[in-house]
Amino acid sequence: MKRVRLWVSYDGTEYSGWQIQPGVPTIEGKLDEAIQNLIGENIHVIGASRTDAGVHGLCNVAVFDTEHPMPADRYAFALNSFLPDDIVVFESDEVAPDWHPRHVDGTRKTYEYRITRTRHENPLTNRYSAHYYGPLDVEQVRRAATLLCGTHDYTSFCAAATVVTDRVRTVYDITVETPNDDTMIFRVTGNGFLYNMVRIIVGTLLSVGRGELTPEQMPDILAACDRTKAGPTAPAKGLTLYKIEYPAEVQAFLSSPASS
Amino acid sequence: MKRVRLWVSYDGTEYSGWQIQPGVPTIEGKLDEAIQNLIGENIHVIGASRTDAGVHGLCNVAVFDTEHPMPADRYAFALNSFLPDDIVVFESDEVAPDWHPRHVDGTRKTYEYRITRTRHENPLTNRYSAHYYGPLDVEQVRRAATLLCGTHDYTSFCAAATVVTDRVRTVYDITVETPNDDTMIFRVTGNGFLYNMVRIIVGTLLSVGRGELTPEQMPDILAACDRTKAGPTAPAKGLTLYKIEYPAEVQAFLSSPASS
Repeated sequence: MKRVRLWVSYDGTEYSGWQIQPGVPTIEGKLDEAIQNLIGENIHVIGASRTDAGVHGLCNVAVFDTEHPMPADRYAFALNSFLPDDIVVFESDEVAPDWHPRHVDGTRKTYEYRITRTRHENPLTNRYSAHYYGPLDVEQVRRAATLLCGTHDYTSFCAAATVVTDRVRTVYDITVETPNDDTMIFRVTGNGFLYNMVRIIVGTLLSVGRGELTPEQMPDILAACDRTKAGPTAPAKGLTLYKIEYPAEVQAFLSSPASS
Repeated sequence: MKRVRLWVSYDGTEYSGWQIQPGVPTIEGKLDEAIQNLIGENIHVIGASRTDAGVHGLCNVAVFDTEHPMPADRYAFALNSFLPDDIVVFESDEVAPDWHPRHVDGTRKTYEYRITRTRHENPLTNRYSAHYYGPLDVEQVRRAATLLCGTHDYTSFCAAATVVTDRVRTVYDITVETPNDDTMIFRVTGNGFLYNMVRIIVGTLLSVGRGELTPEQMPDILAACDRTKAGPTAPAKGLTLYKIEYPAEVQAFLSSPASS
């Protein structure tokens, strides 16, 4: 028995998220199916991040256990012919039998959120970014972003529907880049994220950019532990799980639309 | 009667190209339909560039004549609710009644061709770029690119099926950028292009990059006027009509995946 780890990239547009659900296409479901078709075992992968419907992944991680003799590093190549074009396993390796993608101390996850700021929606960026036209005070956005970092109870930035009770997370960094007049890129790095947390952070920061909220209100919004105090949830399509860094591991990443 | 000009952007993935054809979706067909639905006149647009199946447009141009009293600059806003999400009219204006988008002296067109160079295909760049993994000598590619510029008969770089007899075109510039290890971007600017010309130029330059052809062979390939002497035709999905510059006109452009 060995534990195989897959590094997975996907365009989430056509999927009802990562987590398997009956009757709808999911990333996890497609991976299970591809592995079953490849090695003939009834496999269910365990994922690192259960991204929402419509959210993309440049770098997600999944593991499964198998008796099959195929070396772990062959799965990346072999699985892609069993997967649709919008899901790619770009790397695979063997990990310890007890290695769990969500239970590694010191793991850092980074999400990227992209906004296109042209007057009309741009069909060539529309699939991987939200559209927002109108003035934004980027300096105020950056000031508010700094105030949302740290170790806090992020209940105000968590979809009300969640069942998770421990809502303390650490956000290490939020960067806001404007590589050109038409593009705004947020990158949010933390030790973990609550349901819709990055999308609510971005929605709140855009409210600050429009002047509906001030940076100085951020500590109060955090302290309130009340979802209604924060801004709206930004659309799923602008969000990409950008990278997962396990401590003391060297990784190879693909480039997102961002880095080109 | 006035002539309205539309500035159009589209994701070509789902279309059988610009030019209207019975029974298949085309950009031109969707524009005609949207205009007809908006103003109730039986309209057929005239396009600047009849891009191929699967080729994208960041900035194409179309004109039509109408008796309708709506001001020309309103069409951009009004048409988008009659168009699918992957086609956007981002600007509209009125032009002289005899202004023709393909018959303006001194027009410069620029096409962009994107290549993703990761080991596996990347689903987040796959829709708008071709995948090529393997070593490429970028300096040799650039040297060959320079030798393909100028005013020449480009028959060797024209799909054999074409009916166009005058195959002399001027290519002003071919740039080759590598913004990171995973991305290669060609931009080809000229006064006009033959059928598949940019895709054959890119395919030929990649042959040079792999060492199958040398830069020094480029003049001979041009002089041969023989399609079989040039390299293969690069896939449609990597190609985007990037801009059309009419002389002495100020234009506003959207940003492509490239510019972010």
